[in-house]
Amino acid sequence: MNKMVKVVIAAYGITPFTKDDQKIESVLLKSAKNLFDNNPKINRNDIDAVLVSTNSNSKYLSPILSEMAGIQPKIAHSVESLCNSGTNAIVSAYSYIASGLADMVLISGAERYDSPGQILEWDNSRGEFKHPIFWASIFTKSYKREFSISDEDLAIVSVKNHKQAKENPNALTMDTCTVQDVMNSKKLTDDLRVLNCSRPCTGSASILLASEEAAKKITDMPVWITGIGQKTISAGFTKHASFSSMESTKLAGQTALKMANHNTEDIDVVEIHDAFSVCEPIALESLGFSSTGDGIGIVKALHETDNFKINPRGGLIGSGHPLGATGIAQTIEITQQLQSNAGNRQVDSAKVGLVHNMSAAATSSTVLVLEK
Amino acid sequence: MNKMVKVVIAAYGITPFTKDDQKIESVLLKSAKNLFDNNPKINRNDIDAVLVSTNSNSKYLSPILSEMAGIQPKIAHSVESLCNSGTNAIVSAYSYIASGLADMVLISGAERYDSPGQILEWDNSRGEFKHPIFWASIFTKSYKREFSISDEDLAIVSVKNHKQAKENPNALTMDTCTVQDVMNSKKLTDDLRVLNCSRPCTGSASILLASEEAAKKITDMPVWITGIGQKTISAGFTKHASFSSMESTKLAGQTALKMANHNTEDIDVVEIHDAFSVCEPIALESLGFSSTGDGIGIVKALHETDNFKINPRGGLIGSGHPLGATGIAQTIEITQQLQSNAGNRQVDSAKVGLVHNMSAAATSSTVLVLEK
Repeated sequence: MNKMVKVVIAAYGITPFTKDDQKIESVLLKSAKNLFDNNPKINRNDIDAVLVSTNSNSKYLSPILSEMAGIQPKIAHSVESLCNSGTNAIVSAYSYIASGLADMVLISGAERYDSPGQILEWDNSRGEFKHPIFWASIFTKSYKREFSISDEDLAIVSVKNHKQAKENPNALTMDTCTVQDVMNSKKLTDDLRVLNCSRPCTGSASILLASEEAAKKITDMPVWITGIGQKTISAGFTKHASFSSMESTKLAGQTALKMANHNTEDIDVVEIHDAFSVCEPIALESLGFSSTGDGIGIVKALHETDNFKINPRGGLIGSGHPLGATGIAQTIEITQQLQSNAGNRQVDSAKVGLVHNMSAAATSSTVLVLEK
Repeated sequence: MNKMVKVVIAAYGITPFTKDDQKIESVLLKSAKNLFDNNPKINRNDIDAVLVSTNSNSKYLSPILSEMAGIQPKIAHSVESLCNSGTNAIVSAYSYIASGLADMVLISGAERYDSPGQILEWDNSRGEFKHPIFWASIFTKSYKREFSISDEDLAIVSVKNHKQAKENPNALTMDTCTVQDVMNSKKLTDDLRVLNCSRPCTGSASILLASEEAAKKITDMPVWITGIGQKTISAGFTKHASFSSMESTKLAGQTALKMANHNTEDIDVVEIHDAFSVCEPIALESLGFSSTGDGIGIVKALHETDNFKINPRGGLIGSGHPLGATGIAQTIEITQQLQSNAGNRQVDSAKVGLVHNMSAAATSSTVLVLEK
């Protein structure tokens, strides 16, 4: 790994997550437009690549976005890997810059509330349950049983993340909730209630990556991508060795931290892929932020002290989950935190942040380390 | 551009193009299996990335292929850009290796005969004609009018490419045809008959890219990617400045040849994206292989001397066009030619080859230069 190549997050754009019924092309353009509006120094002729992250069935979205945004890039295509499409596109953009094929890459992620990426037909091990609540239920039951965790304990993830989302102007909802609200919400399976789940929604998020030199023209608050880790274990859920840990997350985290030359104690702010409540403590454990079975202890302690360190924008549960935009929105949140630009969500003196984005019951994961 | 980084085509796999009604996952696996069967020295644990090129609406195909093929990659996602998805995936794989994020990348492209990538709903300029014959008709009419080319002249592209496809064991059909056969084939529009068109089909093609060091373990006949050029002009057809030339192809070709430090005279064998007869002469002109309006002259001269220099495997018209696999199949053909492994299709002493792959009426193009 060539640590000498420096890639910068030079700009970003994001718009509110909603339940709007809009064409994917319109959704996609919104955050790109927001990015350009907020960064008038960007010359569109300098953009070498446009990568679109989405699960939409619409084709040729990168040339379409490029045409609408007035860009004629060299490289243009869509990237799909279910829920971690966004960070897959970011890592691809990083590699285009680090390899010298591009100096500036726009990555735009977008999804509609009715995304076809919510179902994984291929995975027969899910039986009739094609929806992710199948694996989330098994994770929840396994985690509770193995570590004597209660439904009330897990509800705190949702309570905390809804509280934090209230400070995020782009979140799907501003509603807060109590443990009792979670416990009283509609029962979906033995182990899952509706407030334990992130909700699909319509939204987009865009970032511009640039080489160190190219970024100088655009920003004087560069945020660097210093660590990258990715791992795919399988596609099918039942290939997991354990239903209460995330092997792909563990390996991706180790690789990213090693590349960045950091350990978990150095990380000031974290975006965790909390597709369901149980994902937050399990991911914290697999990433090494806590010992096995004690992830929920961290969540509780942070919640009680109103510390926004984990999922400051409200996570997927609080912000909504527009699949192809999620990894990019997570990366924008860490960027805002490192730039001390996160408003009421700001974590004190954040210098190093981590993004955790995963797909399909953590059968694959991406971890990024960002630094100012 | 860092010309010092060397990326090798270390292995490939391909299976016949058909009209079979098979699941996309099965189609995808076939060429990957062929690649591994033919290259027993590959250690699957060395594969850092698996990129899938397709227009299929099926999601998470890279982790699915990885699981079926016994690979647990770091990087895994699908790439889509209509008909040049394949070369987009190849260039992405190149950048992962050149950046140091990967040493070995499997790229597998696959499509079914009923691919959703055949229609571009978004492009309103096509009116009610969503199918590519809309733009192909306009290109054909414009090219014929501008350079006084006849339907019989253009028919020779199809005659030549069907003749060449007969020597390609993976081609969709072994049928040859005469100019009169083309002229008598079913009329689709004023300017297009069915034998002027490439046909959608079911097929897959896989290649393995590797760093110079990693490739040494696998092959002693390395083929190097020495030139890369890509350009997107627009998504909509009517944004073209001309309907009888291909601006994206011209710019991509110039970039690729410059990077490889070659000019067109150095190129011994060429894969051209002949989605329709007219595309072959226009692309030859835009790439600089002939002066404007004389592309068909080259085609005729090669045909009359049984010289397979242009589209030795039969092009898209002769081989069939499984969208996501096409760019990879083209790259495999040039690799076989440079390795003197192309059987009856072999072009004499081929040392430098070029791949031209494009999408949506040449609104975007990729050009690769390969060398042995």
